[in-house]
Amino acid sequence: MKRVKLTVAYDGTNYCGWQIQSNGITVQQVLNEALGSLLGEEIKTVGASRTDAGVHALGNVAVFDTTSRIPPEKFSFALNAGLPADIRIQKSEEVPPDFHPRFTTTVKTYEYQILNRTFGDPARRLSSFHWYGKLDLEEMQEAASYLVGKHDFKSFATASPDVNSTVRTIYSIRLWKENDMIHIRVTGNGFLYHMVRIIAGTLMEVGKGKIRPGQMKDILAAEDRRAAGPTACALGLTLMEIRYPEWES
Amino acid sequence: MKRVKLTVAYDGTNYCGWQIQSNGITVQQVLNEALGSLLGEEIKTVGASRTDAGVHALGNVAVFDTTSRIPPEKFSFALNAGLPADIRIQKSEEVPPDFHPRFTTTVKTYEYQILNRTFGDPARRLSSFHWYGKLDLEEMQEAASYLVGKHDFKSFATASPDVNSTVRTIYSIRLWKENDMIHIRVTGNGFLYHMVRIIAGTLMEVGKGKIRPGQMKDILAAEDRRAAGPTACALGLTLMEIRYPEWES
Repeated sequence: MKRVKLTVAYDGTNYCGWQIQSNGITVQQVLNEALGSLLGEEIKTVGASRTDAGVHALGNVAVFDTTSRIPPEKFSFALNAGLPADIRIQKSEEVPPDFHPRFTTTVKTYEYQILNRTFGDPARRLSSFHWYGKLDLEEMQEAASYLVGKHDFKSFATASPDVNSTVRTIYSIRLWKENDMIHIRVTGNGFLYHMVRIIAGTLMEVGKGKIRPGQMKDILAAEDRRAAGPTACALGLTLMEIRYPEWES
Repeated sequence: MKRVKLTVAYDGTNYCGWQIQSNGITVQQVLNEALGSLLGEEIKTVGASRTDAGVHALGNVAVFDTTSRIPPEKFSFALNAGLPADIRIQKSEEVPPDFHPRFTTTVKTYEYQILNRTFGDPARRLSSFHWYGKLDLEEMQEAASYLVGKHDFKSFATASPDVNSTVRTIYSIRLWKENDMIHIRVTGNGFLYHMVRIIAGTLMEVGKGKIRPGQMKDILAAEDRRAAGPTACALGLTLMEIRYPEWES
C-alpha cells in the first residue's frame, strides 16, 4: 500500500467547491471518479483545503492510498488524460503512510486578484474580481501590514461551528499592481472560513477610502465579524500553494 | 445621424467568431441585438476584424450609425449593462461619418500566448495554448525577426478567394517569456487569413528545433502555404488593438 500525494489545480467556476456534497458537482468528486476508473477500485481522496464554490486552485493537495503498481510520479500524466480541462494534476508523488494533508503543519498561500479598470476584460472575468473605481494601493499596503503576525482573526472569519481557535499566524501579505491587476498574496499557517476573502473585501474598503489603514488594528481587536468589510467575491481567489515544512527535505 | 465607434473586448470561447453567420451565435450578432434593444431600432454594426471562432479580442472595432440622443461616449456603459459578461465594450466615441473600420489604414496588434509548462493551468486554458515541451525562445526570436518588414506572406496564409494581394507589412514582432507564458506580439498594417496563427505555429516548430531560424527566409520565398508550419490553435490568439493613424489626433 502506497500513499500518493496529488497537487491539484482547477478552475473553480463550474464546481460547487472542493468537498463532495449532494447538491452539486465538486472537484473532489470528479477526481475520485477519475482515480476510480483509472484504478478499477473505489478511491476516496482526502483533501487539504475545502475551497468554496467558485474559488480556484493552482496547488490544492489531496492524498489517497492504493496498491496499484503505477509509479506514484506517473499518476499526474495518467489522471490528466481522463480529467476535464478545468482540473489538472500538477504533480504526483509518494508520501509516507502517516502523512495527512490537513492534520500536519502547513504554510498556505492564497492570492486574491482585483482587475482595476473602467470596464471588465472578458478574458479575465472568471479569475479576478472587477472593480472600476479608484483603489489607493499604498493605503491598502499599509492596512495589510497590520494583519501580519499572530492574531485572533475572529473579525475576519465567518463563524464556523467546528473551529476551536480563531488565532492564526499570517507570515506575509504582499500587495502589488501589475498593469491593471492588483494582486493580494497572503501566506499563513492556516486560514479561517472566508478569511482571505474578508481580508480582501476589507482591503478594498481601505482602497476606496472608506476604512483608514490604522483602523485595521481596531477591527482585529473587536473580534467581531461586523467590524470588518464585506466578503469579497469567490471568483477572485486562488489557492496558490500548500507547503508542509515538516515533510520537506 | 451620428457614427459611433465601439472598442469591443470578448472571450471568443463561446462564439463562432465575430461575423454574423447562420450556423452559430457570433459576437457581432449579440452586439447588434444589444444595440437593437437599447435603441429600439435594428442596428447593423460594421466590424474591423472578422476574428475566427475561439479567437479573443481586447480591442476589436465596430461602428454603427444612429440618430439616438445618447451621448456617444455613454454607449459603453449602456451596452455593458445588457451584454453577457464575455463581451465588454471598452470605449465608445463619435467618429466622422466617413470613417470606415475596414477601408481605412490600420495598425493592428495581435498577441499569441503559449503556456509553456509540464501540465496545463486550468485558469488559463481558454486564453493560451498549452505546450509541455521545451521551446527555445532565442531561436524563436531570431526566426521572428526575418518576418519583420514588407513581404509577400502567401506562405503564411490560408488561401482566401477575396484577397487581391498577399503582401503585408509587419512593423514589429516581440517575443518574450513571463514566468511560464510565452507571448508573441505582432503589429502590422493588416493580416491575411490565419496569418498570425500560422506564424505562431511556425515559430513553435522553430522552438522545438524542427525548423531553423534562417529557414524563415526560404519559407517566405516559397510563397506556398505548405512551406510553413501548422496553424496554431485559435484559443491562444487575441486581437489586442486596432489603431487608425489617419484619424488619430
